[in-house]
Amino acid sequence: MRRWELAIALDPGRELPLFLQLAGTIADDIRCGRLKPGEALPGSRELALRLGVNRNTIVAGYSELVAEGLVSTRIGGGTFVGEPAAPPPDAPAMTEQTPTYSLMPPLPLPMAGHAPAPGVLMMSNGAPDARLFPARALARAFRRAIEHRGRSLLVAPHPCGHIRLRTELAAMLARTRGLLATPDNLMVTRSIEQGIDLVARTLIGPGDTVAVEAFGYPPAWSVLKLAGAQLVPIAVDSGGLDVDALEALLRQQTIRAVFLTPHHQFPTTTVMSPARRARLAELALQHGFAIIEDDYDHEFHYEGKPILPIAAGAGRANVVYIGSLSNLLAPGVSTGFVVAPPAVFARLQSMRAASDARSDAAMECAIAELFEDGELLRHVRRMRRTYAARRDALAEALTRHLGGAVHFRLPEGGMGLWVRADDGIDVARWSRDGEREGVLFFDARRYDFHQRAQSFLRLGFTYHDESELDDAVRRMARALSRQTWPSAVSSSR
Amino acid sequence: MRRWELAIALDPGRELPLFLQLAGTIADDIRCGRLKPGEALPGSRELALRLGVNRNTIVAGYSELVAEGLVSTRIGGGTFVGEPAAPPPDAPAMTEQTPTYSLMPPLPLPMAGHAPAPGVLMMSNGAPDARLFPARALARAFRRAIEHRGRSLLVAPHPCGHIRLRTELAAMLARTRGLLATPDNLMVTRSIEQGIDLVARTLIGPGDTVAVEAFGYPPAWSVLKLAGAQLVPIAVDSGGLDVDALEALLRQQTIRAVFLTPHHQFPTTTVMSPARRARLAELALQHGFAIIEDDYDHEFHYEGKPILPIAAGAGRANVVYIGSLSNLLAPGVSTGFVVAPPAVFARLQSMRAASDARSDAAMECAIAELFEDGELLRHVRRMRRTYAARRDALAEALTRHLGGAVHFRLPEGGMGLWVRADDGIDVARWSRDGEREGVLFFDARRYDFHQRAQSFLRLGFTYHDESELDDAVRRMARALSRQTWPSAVSSSR
Repeated sequence: MRRWELAIALDPGRELPLFLQLAGTIADDIRCGRLKPGEALPGSRELALRLGVNRNTIVAGYSELVAEGLVSTRIGGGTFVGEPAAPPPDAPAMTEQTPTYSLMPPLPLPMAGHAPAPGVLMMSNGAPDARLFPARALARAFRRAIEHRGRSLLVAPHPCGHIRLRTELAAMLARTRGLLATPDNLMVTRSIEQGIDLVARTLIGPGDTVAVEAFGYPPAWSVLKLAGAQLVPIAVDSGGLDVDALEALLRQQTIRAVFLTPHHQFPTTTVMSPARRARLAELALQHGFAIIEDDYDHEFHYEGKPILPIAAGAGRANVVYIGSLSNLLAPGVSTGFVVAPPAVFARLQSMRAASDARSDAAMECAIAELFEDGELLRHVRRMRRTYAARRDALAEALTRHLGGAVHFRLPEGGMGLWVRADDGIDVARWSRDGEREGVLFFDARRYDFHQRAQSFLRLGFTYHDESELDDAVRRMARALSRQTWPSAVSSSR
Repeated sequence: MRRWELAIALDPGRELPLFLQLAGTIADDIRCGRLKPGEALPGSRELALRLGVNRNTIVAGYSELVAEGLVSTRIGGGTFVGEPAAPPPDAPAMTEQTPTYSLMPPLPLPMAGHAPAPGVLMMSNGAPDARLFPARALARAFRRAIEHRGRSLLVAPHPCGHIRLRTELAAMLARTRGLLATPDNLMVTRSIEQGIDLVARTLIGPGDTVAVEAFGYPPAWSVLKLAGAQLVPIAVDSGGLDVDALEALLRQQTIRAVFLTPHHQFPTTTVMSPARRARLAELALQHGFAIIEDDYDHEFHYEGKPILPIAAGAGRANVVYIGSLSNLLAPGVSTGFVVAPPAVFARLQSMRAASDARSDAAMECAIAELFEDGELLRHVRRMRRTYAARRDALAEALTRHLGGAVHFRLPEGGMGLWVRADDGIDVARWSRDGEREGVLFFDARRYDFHQRAQSFLRLGFTYHDESELDDAVRRMARALSRQTWPSAVSSSR
């Protein structure tokens, strides 16, 4: 059998890290069949010599492929192309299995996150950069937690999460966000979506009206609809949710709850003013509705002090506060949390105890340990500096490579820029051309309650590093050069 | 300040391991205030010398206390009594926070598992023995998984779980249980309760009738009721669910689903016969209802081959199969799974994607690695031997210390014995007296759909080792000696 040869050389001049160039090339060779299942990749030492790069680059590239399930390592050494997953050979066809009972129509699948093919830059991705995750510290903390093997750790996990993590989270929220949080009214959830789901099932019944931001986070809308909510969109502007518009609605009908993202509104990145927050809390007390405050990226605030959550203000009796450390650590790590006044919390707790009674106590203790030894707060400070620099780098690259074509305001915090394409640009075509250039971005239609075509884009700046962001914007510029549009100057005629 | 002295000596003659005797004594001293918050425990070396035991015993005892949150260790060494958790000093009273909207009455809290005070033996506990958990192997696998830091691992976890774990679980279920499982119709869930919850929300609407076993698992009933199910209990006998009784019900009304535990019925431990399974599957196809098969401890079968699940038989089109590895590993570890025919699975997947979109990809890869390197199957075999021996030890101890007072049949598998107290024994009083002797057991009222007082007990044999089980039964015998009851002989007059 002919030995596979890496077809292209790596280019240290490209901004894409060498290990991702390597992983991308090999992944393409596997997908197009040039590398077959079972075939061995060259040893890392050998390939490093052949390509004239550091061996760690090869190891990192191979790790990337292992993590994507494209190759696997074997005991005794060697890295091999994996078999595509297939049903066991003797399995009868699945199609025979049609139930004889009637099924409701399937729910629409919410927007699924997916990892890009290696080499593709994801500007549409609002995810954190998993390369910066404190993996070693967490692995060490997990080992220590699980080696105690204390029976209370593993036998009877508390449905609200381990007391150590609840204590740490409550102390952090009380200290940095002014919340009335104690271990007794804070629940750790598997994910922010689970938090929203528990709150929705606790507070919302079929047919209840819930007001949401007209530009928002569709997965949250799906969860609210699961509980039977009728959603009503309320306009957002540069000050966040338009509270006057909400007040107009309240003159016409009663509502059960408002769901909103006041601190770096998603997706528009604006911060709701303290005056609007206070007015909203007042309306909630007066009209008897709940405020579900989703504060998903509170810690990523770069200019001045973050504004205190609505749940820390005078009207907090009606606020349920939802947050997560998953943007700080990584989406797979169970670190959502919900804080609620005692009467609501009792109901949330029984809902959680019924629907998912156990929690991942060992992992929770590991995260608590990262708090206890200061690692977590150091990581917050590191990430804040890193993401602030990336925000600035993206803004600079947009100005340099796409000046005139896009317009934006630098946000005070968050994980993305809210960018308006210049009039006359065919954003859908730009997006399609971008994909051919190896950069993914989409218009903001997906965040619009009414799913209308938009001249706005949300560009994430946390997933890629500065040089990748610059590369991405240059690819966007190349994609845009395939169309002519009436520029800002010419359109001002 | 007077230095705290350990008040009692450890007794190597007691069956309770020395480290648990130590942990129990110290825990009592903390609870009654003889040891105050902030006070230092003696060094492990010093205390080992003083008590004349191995230093590892002291370390294990302290670890137990750390895991229970009663003491903590500090950098630089030393073990200190912890502060009781308290709200931050400046927190306003929680009672001011009463929402102005109306709340539904709280759900009843389902039976909460809780760790016993050190030294108390929990015969009521059906949990696995966390001391036998392959903690080191899992910690190593987790470290390897997370160190790859592949972006696909941490950025976009699949709502159904990582492909590596789905592949391994599907292969295991196809091979050992004859299921039509592939990575495309198997979902990893956070817990078995989450699996039941997703299935219930997918299949059951408000007012639908669901048949359940008249003796069963109350947390599952809570989850079904959350979805709006009207539960109807069906008798169980020595052959499991009474299918004739179900058939009689079907002549009177339609049902949406049957929820049952056919393989080691919970709590009665019986195995449903293949003939009854086939009849049940036939009825489901004919009457158009779903079978929700909860196979929570399939791998713990000690006599002969386990019977294949209903989901592996001819009527499988109507069966949704739920299981978990949490009894094999530990309750805190996310290893539930659901297998369903494709049409149902599509709906389950969108329900999961909406309500808890992310999964713990790093932990899932770690567990997949335990499969891949054979560690998991070795652990299954070890646990099967261990638990079979414990089952026999419990049966022997019951015969030796409580012969005449209790009656039982040795189950073919599972995690507990179903024991009937002799006529005339006041089981409630026995249980209260047992608590004074340091052993917890309860009558089976909690498992009865109608919550009636029972002469039956379910005694778990997996949580404690052989000598602990013997000790527990001797404590039960001492507790029983406080009452006189008409023995089997005298009651036969």
